[in-house]
Amino acid sequence: MIINGVEIDDTFAEAFPMKATRVIITAQTAQWAYNSAKSMTGFATSVIGCGCEADIERVLDPSETPDGRPGVSAMLFTMGGKGLRKQLEIRAGQSVLTSPTSALFSGIDGGKTIPLGKNLRYFGDGFQTSKVINDNRYWRIPVMDGEFLVEENTSMVDAIGGGNLLILAESEVEALEACEKAVESMRKIPNVILPFPGGVVRSGSKVGSKYPSLSASTNNAFCPTLKGVTKTELSPEIESVMEIVVDGLTEDDIKKAMREGMKTFCSIGAYNGIKRISAGNYGGKLGPFHFHLQEIMQ
Amino acid sequence: MIINGVEIDDTFAEAFPMKATRVIITAQTAQWAYNSAKSMTGFATSVIGCGCEADIERVLDPSETPDGRPGVSAMLFTMGGKGLRKQLEIRAGQSVLTSPTSALFSGIDGGKTIPLGKNLRYFGDGFQTSKVINDNRYWRIPVMDGEFLVEENTSMVDAIGGGNLLILAESEVEALEACEKAVESMRKIPNVILPFPGGVVRSGSKVGSKYPSLSASTNNAFCPTLKGVTKTELSPEIESVMEIVVDGLTEDDIKKAMREGMKTFCSIGAYNGIKRISAGNYGGKLGPFHFHLQEIMQ
Amino acid sequence: MIINGVEIDDTFAEAFPMKATRVIITAQTAQWAYNSAKSMTGFATSVIGCGCEADIERVLDPSETPDGRPGVSAMLFTMGGKGLRKQLEIRAGQSVLTSPTSALFSGIDGGKTIPLGKNLRYFGDGFQTSKVINDNRYWRIPVMDGEFLVEENTSMVDAIGGGNLLILAESEVEALEACEKAVESMRKIPNVILPFPGGVVRSGSKVGSKYPSLSASTNNAFCPTLKGVTKTELSPEIESVMEIVVDGLTEDDIKKAMREGMKTFCSIGAYNGIKRISAGNYGGKLGPFHFHLQEIMQ
Amino acid sequence: MIINGVEIDDTFAEAFPMKATRVIITAQTAQWAYNSAKSMTGFATSVIGCGCEADIERVLDPSETPDGRPGVSAMLFTMGGKGLRKQLEIRAGQSVLTSPTSALFSGIDGGKTIPLGKNLRYFGDGFQTSKVINDNRYWRIPVMDGEFLVEENTSMVDAIGGGNLLILAESEVEALEACEKAVESMRKIPNVILPFPGGVVRSGSKVGSKYPSLSASTNNAFCPTLKGVTKTELSPEIESVMEIVVDGLTEDDIKKAMREGMKTFCSIGAYNGIKRISAGNYGGKLGPFHFHLQEIMQ
Repeated sequence: MIINGVEIDDTFAEAFPMKATRVIITAQTAQWAYNSAKSMTGFATSVIGCGCEADIERVLDPSETPDGRPGVSAMLFTMGGKGLRKQLEIRAGQSVLTSPTSALFSGIDGGKTIPLGKNLRYFGDGFQTSKVINDNRYWRIPVMDGEFLVEENTSMVDAIGGGNLLILAESEVEALEACEKAVESMRKIPNVILPFPGGVVRSGSKVGSKYPSLSASTNNAFCPTLKGVTKTELSPEIESVMEIVVDGLTEDDIKKAMREGMKTFCSIGAYNGIKRISAGNYGGKLGPFHFHLQEIMQ
Repeated sequence: MIINGVEIDDTFAEAFPMKATRVIITAQTAQWAYNSAKSMTGFATSVIGCGCEADIERVLDPSETPDGRPGVSAMLFTMGGKGLRKQLEIRAGQSVLTSPTSALFSGIDGGKTIPLGKNLRYFGDGFQTSKVINDNRYWRIPVMDGEFLVEENTSMVDAIGGGNLLILAESEVEALEACEKAVESMRKIPNVILPFPGGVVRSGSKVGSKYPSLSASTNNAFCPTLKGVTKTELSPEIESVMEIVVDGLTEDDIKKAMREGMKTFCSIGAYNGIKRISAGNYGGKLGPFHFHLQEIMQ
Repeated sequence: MIINGVEIDDTFAEAFPMKATRVIITAQTAQWAYNSAKSMTGFATSVIGCGCEADIERVLDPSETPDGRPGVSAMLFTMGGKGLRKQLEIRAGQSVLTSPTSALFSGIDGGKTIPLGKNLRYFGDGFQTSKVINDNRYWRIPVMDGEFLVEENTSMVDAIGGGNLLILAESEVEALEACEKAVESMRKIPNVILPFPGGVVRSGSKVGSKYPSLSASTNNAFCPTLKGVTKTELSPEIESVMEIVVDGLTEDDIKKAMREGMKTFCSIGAYNGIKRISAGNYGGKLGPFHFHLQEIMQ
Repeated sequence: MIINGVEIDDTFAEAFPMKATRVIITAQTAQWAYNSAKSMTGFATSVIGCGCEADIERVLDPSETPDGRPGVSAMLFTMGGKGLRKQLEIRAGQSVLTSPTSALFSGIDGGKTIPLGKNLRYFGDGFQTSKVINDNRYWRIPVMDGEFLVEENTSMVDAIGGGNLLILAESEVEALEACEKAVESMRKIPNVILPFPGGVVRSGSKVGSKYPSLSASTNNAFCPTLKGVTKTELSPEIESVMEIVVDGLTEDDIKKAMREGMKTFCSIGAYNGIKRISAGNYGGKLGPFHFHLQEIMQ
């Protein structure tokens, strides 16, 4: 399939089941809600190294938040429920409880109930109080700037991690600028996050390594500087490859985000150095979710 | 001591020895260097919960970076050398190696040599190469967007954590706006970071809790909503207290930052609701570094 | 009267009757509406040199504009009705008719009807069409990007020009930064404009000159560099004086804006170099509107 | 000629001799230099209606200005020398002399000497002083904020007005976004200005009108809404046409700017709705400068 000169490979992104939750952080100003959420979702590019994959999902208008203040929604993804509980609690405690004027709410229904402020409340040293509104319990924890308001619980739902797009370009500059635009458009889709810095990852890996202790290593077949040295997947004009990884709540959410990304890359076009779109998979045997690029673009 | 109506307490901030390092992250654009550094230093507000305290120190002009590209300097602080090695390696691997167009350099001399790219290089699966320039070894690791250039080692130095200012204000709004300005001025001082979200923390704690399993809990004597309920350190007009925590390389660095912060608060003045500046300590018995507020302002 | 150390003179700003109108410029994006309005209200600092005094009044939300698009409101002030008609027509023709995707509407009721698109429509060369909605006629003029929609008429109302504040400071830097903040707060008041660049003027003038052909010249009594050379109104510590001129629809509008400005200057305070607030007048014999500073601040 | 699907007409832009000057405005901050320059070059889209065509040329680094402060360069174009002298003097007097902390310098050599501060100096009422540095005289005029420093003279040079590009697109949105990008790239070329709001004009005109008193009227052959009503130059898929007008010091300057604009339009491409690039001319009989689109792109 070729759109505006861009070849879209007949392949698929292979993705995996994850657990996810969404929280809403509000504050006196949008900037302070953002500060808190950015800290809470920092250092969270991959579950293996960071314990979770997390990012700000989007900025919320005061009309969209439980307390009518500016806010942001943030999502966390892990491989299992135990990890999610642990990451949510420690990150909320370190980056939201601490952050001036912040409040913290559940941002998702359905699924399984997990603690949000349930354990954080003990920081109040017995001075904390609670109130039930519409069947949800909220805790008011006295802190130096006033009170930290936090909902007792949130929900954990089934989710999917590892949707991805590989973009093959004639130069690093063209790849980078195209990815900036694609990330901007993909982040407008609800229910997804792009967990890597700026939404893009350039260190694609293969399973295994010549060093026995390492389980993964650079994906040499996609490294442009190794074209003469190793078996390559890259044609001669490709000088840079970047990847966008997408975690989302449902298959449909990830499809929408991947479609937005591909549309952006195609709109930029081969004339501007974007030659080919591919995706990463493991032959389809490991992950149960297969996102076929050409199907998504039909 | 009273300046522009603001009372400065005759007290001191009590601080502790830490270990620290500084790295320089560069990229094709300032935004991408920032993306990578923000991820690497995210979720790093306190050593206990996050493994380290970290933040972007400042944005660097291309003329200040080893490779002449836009960059940022980031600093990490831990309680000991083992933790610093571990945090540096995992955070560099997850947030810099992965980040498009990034390169990673040591940003500090002296002290003890610790690995920067030394172990990350194995990601190259044998395709990595190295070069020694001016006695420093650099690794070139093939990645999908081209190469990840990383210096083999950086340095770990003695440092100080826990410098702090408490600001007591007539309202939360006034405290927050004053802190924004103080943080902006304090972040211009080199060799220091303010590890909390936006540089400010509002959940000051005391040692101990009524719950035996918790070692710390809300500092009720400084909670304005508890004035009628508990023994308070707050006079009637104080409705909000916020804290700025400072980690720095030397006593002098922390003093300079605290002085900038206090100058900013005094310039805002009692007329605008900033009534008093204090500091947190444990009676002087735990931490060897004592930063006396009134001395710093002389 | 002294507030936060700032002396407010027992004097008044002397202002004059003017004619004014308001128009609403909309476009596909807020930026393009702003581009058009900024051009239309450019080079309009004083009626004598520029033909009118004009500025953007404020940015409008799509929900506030006649066609539901992003927009800005702009106001023009002149000494008389003839000048206003002329300036409105030529400026709308040069800066709004020409500007991509723009539409132009009346932004004021009452007063006297004056042409807005009434004559501009002939640019359509007979291809223009019109429609009456709610008793107002609108013209659709074919242009290259589609159509220029313009309301036939707007209104001209009585207004007031020459409200002003003089700010006396210890340094140019402190005066400038204080004026930036005051302008920001004054521009939030509806029905007023601050016609000078950035809202501030530093070339205050007196009537008359040693050169017979000039009717006005520098107000030497307020020039800090002339303190030793001429009779001065400045005490020794004053090193810089700036002025904010306000045109508004009613006395009350101008009072509100002057009050906001004075509140901002007082909040900055004498500690930050803002020593005194005064106002310009001609002894009260020329302009019928007298805005007494101390009354406004009561 | 077709590039990335965009048809470039075999035609030319017809341009005219003008007179031009360049000045440099500096101030304490880049924003205040910009405020002054934006006022000075406001309402200056066409010589006929506004007396001159003017715009900010570019923002200057402190290292590029005569007094080492932040600055901007601005250019004014008129049909003849008398108009240029008049416009320069009145605009400098109203928008730069008045603007806090500003200074004003010549930004061009060669050509004919014309007054810059030579007459403005009389505002100083005899208190002005002068100094000659490197054969240039500078005036120091006492004003309320300190001093207005202004160079006595600047230069007037031969220049060219009316270079232009017509962009034909499938929709108004696509035309507008493409023009934003083209304007951004064209404004990086030195020695040119794009005098219309945001750099774009949509009210292209033809000579003459059905109304005898009007010498120009809408260019109906390029109006998409008139395709069925009048003889058209537009093919069925064209729904919006916009124009970028370029004034420059030399033919080469205008060629470079037109080339940058065309490159940007072609890079966006037919896939994104940019179908055709043309240019406005009067059959080549009126203006001596002919800018052939296809030649420029070779």
